[in-house]
Amino acid sequence: MKNKEKRIFLDYAAITPVDLRVAKEMTKIQKDFWANPSSLHTEGERAKNMLEEARIRIARILHCKSSEVFFTASGTESLNIAILGVVKSQGQPFGTGAVQGLPLAFVSQRSSLKDFAPKGGPLIPHIIVSTIEHSAVLEPIKYLLKEGKAEVSFIAPNEKGIINPDSIKKEIKENTVLIAIQHANNEIGTIQPIQKIAGVIREYKQKNPRVALGQNYPYFLVDACQSVCYEDVSIEKLGADLLVLDGIKIYGPRGVGILVVKRVINIVPVMFGGGQEGGLRSGTENVIGAVGFAKALELARRGGEKESKRLTKLRDYAIKKILKEIPNTSLNGGLENRLPNNINICFQSIQGESLVRKEGLDSEFLVIKLDTLGFAVSAASACHSLSLENGSYVIEAIENARSTSSKSSKCSSSSLRITLGRNTKKSDLDSLISTLKKIVK
Amino acid sequence: MKNKEKRIFLDYAAITPVDLRVAKEMTKIQKDFWANPSSLHTEGERAKNMLEEARIRIARILHCKSSEVFFTASGTESLNIAILGVVKSQGQPFGTGAVQGLPLAFVSQRSSLKDFAPKGGPLIPHIIVSTIEHSAVLEPIKYLLKEGKAEVSFIAPNEKGIINPDSIKKEIKENTVLIAIQHANNEIGTIQPIQKIAGVIREYKQKNPRVALGQNYPYFLVDACQSVCYEDVSIEKLGADLLVLDGIKIYGPRGVGILVVKRVINIVPVMFGGGQEGGLRSGTENVIGAVGFAKALELARRGGEKESKRLTKLRDYAIKKILKEIPNTSLNGGLENRLPNNINICFQSIQGESLVRKEGLDSEFLVIKLDTLGFAVSAASACHSLSLENGSYVIEAIENARSTSSKSSKCSSSSLRITLGRNTKKSDLDSLISTLKKIVK
Repeated sequence: MKNKEKRIFLDYAAITPVDLRVAKEMTKIQKDFWANPSSLHTEGERAKNMLEEARIRIARILHCKSSEVFFTASGTESLNIAILGVVKSQGQPFGTGAVQGLPLAFVSQRSSLKDFAPKGGPLIPHIIVSTIEHSAVLEPIKYLLKEGKAEVSFIAPNEKGIINPDSIKKEIKENTVLIAIQHANNEIGTIQPIQKIAGVIREYKQKNPRVALGQNYPYFLVDACQSVCYEDVSIEKLGADLLVLDGIKIYGPRGVGILVVKRVINIVPVMFGGGQEGGLRSGTENVIGAVGFAKALELARRGGEKESKRLTKLRDYAIKKILKEIPNTSLNGGLENRLPNNINICFQSIQGESLVRKEGLDSEFLVIKLDTLGFAVSAASACHSLSLENGSYVIEAIENARSTSSKSSKCSSSSLRITLGRNTKKSDLDSLISTLKKIVK
Repeated sequence: MKNKEKRIFLDYAAITPVDLRVAKEMTKIQKDFWANPSSLHTEGERAKNMLEEARIRIARILHCKSSEVFFTASGTESLNIAILGVVKSQGQPFGTGAVQGLPLAFVSQRSSLKDFAPKGGPLIPHIIVSTIEHSAVLEPIKYLLKEGKAEVSFIAPNEKGIINPDSIKKEIKENTVLIAIQHANNEIGTIQPIQKIAGVIREYKQKNPRVALGQNYPYFLVDACQSVCYEDVSIEKLGADLLVLDGIKIYGPRGVGILVVKRVINIVPVMFGGGQEGGLRSGTENVIGAVGFAKALELARRGGEKESKRLTKLRDYAIKKILKEIPNTSLNGGLENRLPNNINICFQSIQGESLVRKEGLDSEFLVIKLDTLGFAVSAASACHSLSLENGSYVIEAIENARSTSSKSSKCSSSSLRITLGRNTKKSDLDSLISTLKKIVK
């Protein structure tokens, strides 16, 4: 390992450091508000108030009710609760869900989805999801599919990595309960037309009698973990019914995520216990983490616009330079509708000495080579770093959308994800590019 | 609220403050080891090493393999994974579980439990559990029961709050997959004969052919959240197959729990995603929290014996004084086999002015009255504070074990839990007792 001071971190999509202002606020809370928010005494009440204040701070930014904000331990947990909790709620009386502080025993008068089950067949909830979602979305859905608990329509992106709202429109049917589309992709940074998709869903609902019965399926789940630092992710703006954010992606606390669940959603918990978070997510509340999350979200949104502009410039500068100066490179995903901090380059025909050991492993060798030279970048998402044999399924999906002639390009295992962050300077990118040129030459 | 400096906190069973040494170690880690442990680069590798070091530190104390330690977000989550994950693994090929870093796709040669299903009937896993477990144990089990996914034998304690190993022995049968008994009760502090229960289970296994087929059911799940500060909770010592601890009960980090899963256990995940923690618990690992947990556990065990002695003296002093000086009081749970920090007193016939508004609400009024006078104590567990209408189910269970003549005592809604901790001094207890005398007189 080189001199630590000289290392350049360009993997902010994997994780962000904890902002010092967030850390400071958490340390302060830790001293005075460490009690259990469920306790009846003053210490408990003060902790509870602090927790609820954090919830209000978050709701203010997301334009939702504070009672619609649920704290979890991660984006992964939030996504699992959203997906498994909505599907599991099927076949149970409407309103047995735990949102809004309703006790689990609460049963509303509203009918359940089975009133709409196709005649003669058993009820199986239907999910629509893009093929390029994060594994925390795809894996719980694959689990439901495997178990026969859901049927699933997988929607492929176009070659620029964008999901067409019309392709979702075509798939919505009577038993569709959930549509899960990420706001921005974690690998190639493409920003999906969330508002248009919300419009398609709204239109379907307006024409569908389920609305009249208080069953406003399908629900729209938006994973906004990657976009929140750069885009307005308010519930209102996006038109989402369920929204997921993660502290580690916003320079915030580890082990804290949120799930926003709109008031009208029918959802049941995945895990059970003391009934905290309105029964949807049991376990003693992490007050310190919740406050840290609120602070991080405030900082991210407050500085978001300015930082977006700064990073967009840096991103475009670097992309242009790489494509121009390094032969046989191409950009994965379109340049339009792309996160300001995301660069994902396909190095298709690298012929460097140790780099073509075996077809499809180039990404990994590039990451490791750059690492030894002082740069932290990644091949695909961090979650798949350790199982990259198959390459990136996200890049494979956009390659499949291309004309057959170029299908042999194999970018899925020859690409680098370079993601910028608050500490990234132009000189860092210059340094990376000149190093890349030497490796690739 | 009184002057903040003068308040006395005696509710350490609900939560403990973060030890300054733990906070310091976490702050240190936060600065240098904030990367994603799944990343391939040096930053990721360093975070991964730090995480694995924390796992090793914990394993050393619990006398298990580090690969048997899984990080979660809470005791509640750990207990849910243990219970739902073991039951859900039934009917799936043995070894589809995710422990030991095995990929989820791994399928061993070993047969599944259905080979032992009673002829003619469908396979339903059987669980044995005490009636005085924490809600994070009882609620997932009740869920399985309600869904028809498990049958359950509930074991009542004797009047001293102790579970008789023989009563468990009687209930073990062919399809028993899980036996869940807490090490120490969170309300009345009674310590269960875990080793004897482990012996009963071991004996059953030795006589049962399932062992020969590599199916070592039933598994023994021990919730040691409350006991770990005062008792040796090593896997070896207790004879547990699954063990649960929580950071908030050991002066440690919020949002961090662990689940120890012995190597031979068949278990599947409850939530899905990037496949972290050997696939058993997806979601980016909380390195800072893991290190804080390891530090807190080390401190708790290192100082455990001395602190146990100190608190036992204080506890016995206070119990004796209360029972002697306050009329109509009794101790809930026996004095033997009791946590050093737990005092749980029944105030059976309080006649104070505002205290007998309604039968069964005395506990709550006492807690609130004491709170206004500067003391933080609790009625039952914090998790049930906000739904105390029905009183404590733990105290109700030990009352039911008494002779019928005293059944009318209603201690379940007339008791106080007073739990001591590292900052508790004798003068705090003297002060509490003299205040109690004034209230009760």
